[in-house]
Amino acid sequence: MDTSVKTREAAQTIDALITPSLLLDRGRLERNIQRLAEHARKLGVVLRPHMKTAKSIDVTRYVFPGEPGPITVSTIAEAEYFAGHGFRDMTYAVGMSPASVVRAMELCRRTGADVKLLLDSVEQADALAGVREDTGVTPSVFIELDCDDHRGGLKPDDPKLLEVANRVVAAGANLVGVLAHAGESYGLSTADALVKAAENERSATVRAAETLRAHGHACPIVSLGSTPTAHFAENLEGVTELRAGVYMFFDLVQHGVGVCGLDDIAISVLATVIGSKPEKGWVLVDAGWMALSRDRGTANQQIDQGYGVVCDEKGRVLEDVIVAQASQEHGILAIRAGSGKSMPDLPLGARVRILPNHACAMAAQHHFYAVVNGDSPRIEARWERIRGW
Amino acid sequence: MDTSVKTREAAQTIDALITPSLLLDRGRLERNIQRLAEHARKLGVVLRPHMKTAKSIDVTRYVFPGEPGPITVSTIAEAEYFAGHGFRDMTYAVGMSPASVVRAMELCRRTGADVKLLLDSVEQADALAGVREDTGVTPSVFIELDCDDHRGGLKPDDPKLLEVANRVVAAGANLVGVLAHAGESYGLSTADALVKAAENERSATVRAAETLRAHGHACPIVSLGSTPTAHFAENLEGVTELRAGVYMFFDLVQHGVGVCGLDDIAISVLATVIGSKPEKGWVLVDAGWMALSRDRGTANQQIDQGYGVVCDEKGRVLEDVIVAQASQEHGILAIRAGSGKSMPDLPLGARVRILPNHACAMAAQHHFYAVVNGDSPRIEARWERIRGW
Repeated sequence: MDTSVKTREAAQTIDALITPSLLLDRGRLERNIQRLAEHARKLGVVLRPHMKTAKSIDVTRYVFPGEPGPITVSTIAEAEYFAGHGFRDMTYAVGMSPASVVRAMELCRRTGADVKLLLDSVEQADALAGVREDTGVTPSVFIELDCDDHRGGLKPDDPKLLEVANRVVAAGANLVGVLAHAGESYGLSTADALVKAAENERSATVRAAETLRAHGHACPIVSLGSTPTAHFAENLEGVTELRAGVYMFFDLVQHGVGVCGLDDIAISVLATVIGSKPEKGWVLVDAGWMALSRDRGTANQQIDQGYGVVCDEKGRVLEDVIVAQASQEHGILAIRAGSGKSMPDLPLGARVRILPNHACAMAAQHHFYAVVNGDSPRIEARWERIRGW
Repeated sequence: MDTSVKTREAAQTIDALITPSLLLDRGRLERNIQRLAEHARKLGVVLRPHMKTAKSIDVTRYVFPGEPGPITVSTIAEAEYFAGHGFRDMTYAVGMSPASVVRAMELCRRTGADVKLLLDSVEQADALAGVREDTGVTPSVFIELDCDDHRGGLKPDDPKLLEVANRVVAAGANLVGVLAHAGESYGLSTADALVKAAENERSATVRAAETLRAHGHACPIVSLGSTPTAHFAENLEGVTELRAGVYMFFDLVQHGVGVCGLDDIAISVLATVIGSKPEKGWVLVDAGWMALSRDRGTANQQIDQGYGVVCDEKGRVLEDVIVAQASQEHGILAIRAGSGKSMPDLPLGARVRILPNHACAMAAQHHFYAVVNGDSPRIEARWERIRGW
């Protein structure tokens, strides 16, 4: 067991990095960003990436090498952070609450940003009049649609759609459009089903926009997206913008859905072997759920990846080795049940990289990315992440 | 919908708090701390609380109102943080890796702290000689025991136990004792089974200590503990210290095991209603897995609590209302399947408190506690938490 390890501050290579640590492969990140940008271009829509996965201005700079573009955020804290870095056109893609509206409007007043809000009820629409009065800012709002029974939003054919739109206008707010998220697409696993889910998301959203336009609402933005449907959409006629977030990093859930290969997954947790139980086929590492997250998103997929797929220190997948169990700071590596393989040699002090079930959840457990490229041990940069609300 | 909400900085009451926010009920915290302290006193053992749950110096001050006492930590970052606040006697309860040893010994040299390490192999024992040479500090080490096939550690009757002990001494390190953790007790649910698990943990640990003593090792510390066995132990003869962490806060998993009541659970997430789907019996709140964690520890218990039990704004349990689904920033509240009840009225903007499946995991998603007491809305203090490794 070699104990000549430097502290994190001095780390120039991953060999000297404290474990567990979050790695981000820059080459894979760039390739993933490029892939969806090209697809959006071909389909003739604006891409409005969701920053809830990366939560890092440094990642955003790879998405927008020039001027800051339109983004989606999942918290007002993200909106405040990205506004501080020059972003102006943002959609807060969570239904508005009393507190979030006030903070969003204060941010708009302070920075000149346009933070677009989501609502799906007349109560929320009616509250906008007071907001305008109190803050001096005219809120921009989307009506949230429900295209697949996933979560919130109005069905495209719900008569309340028009009522809510009228109340938004009556409150003096700016109705910018309709917005849907095909969240149920995460549960699919064939190209056919994904193409259909994408078309369902499109047709539902466009139908709602047409209803509003037929009643005098301009509805300039028709926004939809989820990482699976964004990649499988073949036609986005009538749609103006596409949203996706996890596509920058990808993960094992997206791999199980069929959107990416294992070699596209851009983040992993670097861990160190701290013990073994040869009689059980276990190798213990110092990455538990605190580093990997408790996400078990692959549990209901065709291949259950446990708490993550294990790669060697250079990022090469160790076939059928997964994190079988996780406690707070311990992970137990084992061979996937039924695979018939045996554990590779992973002595004390050896390093592994663990791919995430869910990139958003794994990344959220860390406060920075150690940026690497391919199998090189060199750390190119350290990128901070934000958290909180 | 009332939009007169202040920002987090100005919050004096939870009504003005940004949601989601982590609440900590001081009265419950004090009661839980008192309960196990008294039990340890009766059993005649030292209590060495695990700080992996609270990760906050302010919480620690309720455990040790006077001088800092002995604690357990799950990361070297915790050891560094608590050393900075005057703690000296610490056990790092994760198997040592090359990097963790070096950082721990550097901390000892710098501050005079005694950070005790864990090992269960001759390879780790042999590495200690070099550590002593490199850092000038004599490492204090425990041999980790495996009393219930939970994770790492040597079986008490494993011949390697003596070999490892001898190699520790040969490396010039200080063998301070043996340590076990009855992690499998989390899977139990009857008092009988818990009493038996506690006695098994005790007898296994004491047996190992006696073996070592019979061969000339002093083995002064006999350490064991898990929150369930710590509370159900009836006799700790031969044991010198007890460890537990989640007992300060408790959670739904511990409630399911039978260690605490719902009214003992000291932390919760305050959330705001942002929508509803009456036709589905859903109420949407702005706390998803980012605020609650992805932990589903009650999924395999007799009562599956979803992503958490829902209380009203004052902390009174709303019977059979749970967080049925969670996405990143959305929680879906619904009635527990089969309960026959109907959803209480939770209008837009209403606040609820959500109890955790797993306190360690929920707390880790937040960077501070808003400290409250009982059903009062007043915020008494804001306590920071640490994170990272």
